[in-house]
Amino acid sequence: MNIQHAQPILRLIQELTKLPGIGEKTAFRLAMHILRSSKEDAEGLARSILQVKEKIRLCSQCFNLTEQNPCRICQDLRRNAEIICVVSGPEDLIALEKSGSYRGHYHVLHGVLSPLEGIGPKDLRLSELLSRLQEGKIKEVILATNPSVEGEATAQYLAQIINPLNIRVTRIARGVPMGGDLQYIDEATLSKSLENRSPL
Amino acid sequence: MNIQHAQPILRLIQELTKLPGIGEKTAFRLAMHILRSSKEDAEGLARSILQVKEKIRLCSQCFNLTEQNPCRICQDLRRNAEIICVVSGPEDLIALEKSGSYRGHYHVLHGVLSPLEGIGPKDLRLSELLSRLQEGKIKEVILATNPSVEGEATAQYLAQIINPLNIRVTRIARGVPMGGDLQYIDEATLSKSLENRSPL
Repeated sequence: MNIQHAQPILRLIQELTKLPGIGEKTAFRLAMHILRSSKEDAEGLARSILQVKEKIRLCSQCFNLTEQNPCRICQDLRRNAEIICVVSGPEDLIALEKSGSYRGHYHVLHGVLSPLEGIGPKDLRLSELLSRLQEGKIKEVILATNPSVEGEATAQYLAQIINPLNIRVTRIARGVPMGGDLQYIDEATLSKSLENRSPL
Repeated sequence: MNIQHAQPILRLIQELTKLPGIGEKTAFRLAMHILRSSKEDAEGLARSILQVKEKIRLCSQCFNLTEQNPCRICQDLRRNAEIICVVSGPEDLIALEKSGSYRGHYHVLHGVLSPLEGIGPKDLRLSELLSRLQEGKIKEVILATNPSVEGEATAQYLAQIINPLNIRVTRIARGVPMGGDLQYIDEATLSKSLENRSPL
């Protein structure tokens, strides 16, 4: 930071650098854009930031981000309420929804187990998932945490807890991505894709 | 855009994508960060956006961005008021101030001549520059527009106008950047650096 900026510009740059992936130079460029843009545009941006904080809550059933409670997905009677897909974050839920190939319910953990970062089972929405399962209506839980070390460990942990409840537990397939090129794909993925091969 | 986002999230993403260099994916990531951050942080960001629009004006002398009028630089009696450094934007002024090697006044054009984009002399703060020069106190004008096609053309144009006023007109040196490596420097820069060589 330097002293050449007027105080309000300096403040805006400081606030913008708090955002992920925004360094001081980008923040300055954004601040300049905001200064040049119309008053309406700047107010629109500020208002949308406030409104998102004000109006968005977590669904009390699946813990997805939502304006209404329960969320649109939990309320949707056309969806299969006997399957729960467990994801680590709302981003993953949206990615799955975009794929258009899932019509069940969700449960958002808001994180994955990560002993290194001090994130244990109590920091995730695990007890809430278990109470949903204990109602006895759920027939399958799809574990859709990321295929990372923490995601795999979280899936393993969940499988151990859910299996005794006599509910089917499945894990999303890990393998060669569509459109991928075998020669550029890492060994772990290739070995998974061989291990999980299916008859044709 | 997809329908899976709640309306306030969608709105925030739309507002964020209006910023330069922010695409839909980055906007989504930023929106998620804002959703996760504290209410104070979100309000701080929104407030700083509003305040920068509310409090920042153009200096009536040099047209730099400022909270007070005239700006701190124009008011600073320790600075040499007989030299004006002409820059195309406030960013350039700040870069020069950071270098710490200029102690005169400035004039911010807010653009460069660009026939392709339809930016002519009337769209820049040119008449304001000329009236400053006509007051008769200025001894030198340093043209510090960018060494781009438009920047060079703007400098040429300004020199043509200012020279008849019997004011010294100079152009910042263009040459090999400090720390640069000759083998990677473009021909135009190398040819400029030879042309503008100085005795040692």
